[in-house]
Amino acid sequence: MRGGRVWSGTQQTHCYPNHKTEGGGGISCVMQDGKVFEKAGVNVSVVFGNLTEEAAKQMRSRGKVLKGKDGKLPFCAMGVSSVIHPKNPHIPTVHFNYRYFEIEEEDGTKQWWFGGGTDLTPVYINKEDAFHFHNTLKEACDKHHPQYYPDFKKWCDRYFYIRHRGETRGIGGIFFDDLDSPNQEEVFNFVKSCARTVVPCYLPIVYKHLNDSFTDEEKDWQQVRRGRYVEFNLVYDRGVKFGLATPGSRIESILMSLPLTARWEYMHEPAKGTLEAEMLEVLRNPKDWV
Amino acid sequence: MRGGRVWSGTQQTHCYPNHKTEGGGGISCVMQDGKVFEKAGVNVSVVFGNLTEEAAKQMRSRGKVLKGKDGKLPFCAMGVSSVIHPKNPHIPTVHFNYRYFEIEEEDGTKQWWFGGGTDLTPVYINKEDAFHFHNTLKEACDKHHPQYYPDFKKWCDRYFYIRHRGETRGIGGIFFDDLDSPNQEEVFNFVKSCARTVVPCYLPIVYKHLNDSFTDEEKDWQQVRRGRYVEFNLVYDRGVKFGLATPGSRIESILMSLPLTARWEYMHEPAKGTLEAEMLEVLRNPKDWV
Repeated sequence: MRGGRVWSGTQQTHCYPNHKTEGGGGISCVMQDGKVFEKAGVNVSVVFGNLTEEAAKQMRSRGKVLKGKDGKLPFCAMGVSSVIHPKNPHIPTVHFNYRYFEIEEEDGTKQWWFGGGTDLTPVYINKEDAFHFHNTLKEACDKHHPQYYPDFKKWCDRYFYIRHRGETRGIGGIFFDDLDSPNQEEVFNFVKSCARTVVPCYLPIVYKHLNDSFTDEEKDWQQVRRGRYVEFNLVYDRGVKFGLATPGSRIESILMSLPLTARWEYMHEPAKGTLEAEMLEVLRNPKDWV
Repeated sequence: MRGGRVWSGTQQTHCYPNHKTEGGGGISCVMQDGKVFEKAGVNVSVVFGNLTEEAAKQMRSRGKVLKGKDGKLPFCAMGVSSVIHPKNPHIPTVHFNYRYFEIEEEDGTKQWWFGGGTDLTPVYINKEDAFHFHNTLKEACDKHHPQYYPDFKKWCDRYFYIRHRGETRGIGGIFFDDLDSPNQEEVFNFVKSCARTVVPCYLPIVYKHLNDSFTDEEKDWQQVRRGRYVEFNLVYDRGVKFGLATPGSRIESILMSLPLTARWEYMHEPAKGTLEAEMLEVLRNPKDWV
């Protein structure tokens, strides 16, 4: 199907038989094959139910102490996530996700935390764009805690890492999980600041490169990078793995983050001194941009 | 990089410091962006060393009893694998892999087995091709054991299954693992028959459709199916998972099986009564072709 299309709609996700204690819903909006964007999507979802064994195991492996209620762990999770893949190789891909999680303990108390982040995946390095993106995130973080930006910047580089390639997915941004202090209100304010920062982080970069011309070779390199994006999302991304393993989850929403097109060239290694080699160098050795 | 290219070479794979007890090598040959084939590759490799925890665990989960030697499980594995992705959507993708595995037990005895298979992934159903492919495999199997084809045909459909889509990767063929009876010589003869059957299975189909014309829509559907191929290989394929998790493995050889290009369209569902819907129906409900 060629030509721009937009989907927007509400659908039940994770809809289980016992809809009093397990269920949820969400909205996915996707634009495909537009003028500027190859594929752009937003998911908003709310899920509640009992944690699966797998999910509980994963959380315990991060250090969480979870005391089940009759062996069950009732939870409630909600979040917004988005990925935007532009057509022009001089406009980077952006991704963000912010989520809230709540688990009810045996004694009736609740554990809660926020997680998420915003990160950029350029095809070519533009230092000015990288500075703008990271600095805008830093300013938002600094208003809440001086350690947030430096810590979450490193966490982002560690998380969005394609281990089998020895490359990060992009030039990072911020990423955090299990954030539960000093208190719910403060953390929620921080997360709201992060979410409000997405547009000022990204939109100026889009406008700046909207009319940049590009060659077939530059488009090919973009497609190879898109292939790496697919590798990260299918092999490592926690949300995708969780979703694919959860019965009843909505596959199209989970895999919305994949680009419209991607390419795998055997033994692709850019020649020394090229802009492609410069990009790869940064992915192999993450830099400080601010 | 556009335009046909061929790589052919020997390289060390899995090269560990202790080269007396661990090591290996292999040859990968890849043709890319040719006239008929978008990407076609063959890997031949020999690896020896000690099983990783992960690999031993996986084998035990299949029912193997492995008694380690000083906690170690020295093994030796060798195999040939190949994937061919044609350009023309009327020519199917083929994949085959045949391998031999040997593990040394505590008491000095050796466990050995063969595994592998050949399977076809068409973009459009052609019943004549499907019959030819499966029947050629069946004839090869029948010479060795009447249960081989029916059992390994089912095993293939079960193994090449994209669980999160509820679809098989293609129309199958044969797949088997842990084959260790009646004896080494007999099983090796069977595996040799299978390997010799690859060309007569596939080549007539290639020649038949070499000059079939195709539309942009048919090419798009091929690209969407290629996306599903990537999903299977990155999310489920045992060999790929084993390779990506093994330090020192040669990533380019492991991911050689990915197509040159692929496509992910949001909410792609062919209209009823189309040839695309017919293909999907077969992937959702595997058929007997012989």
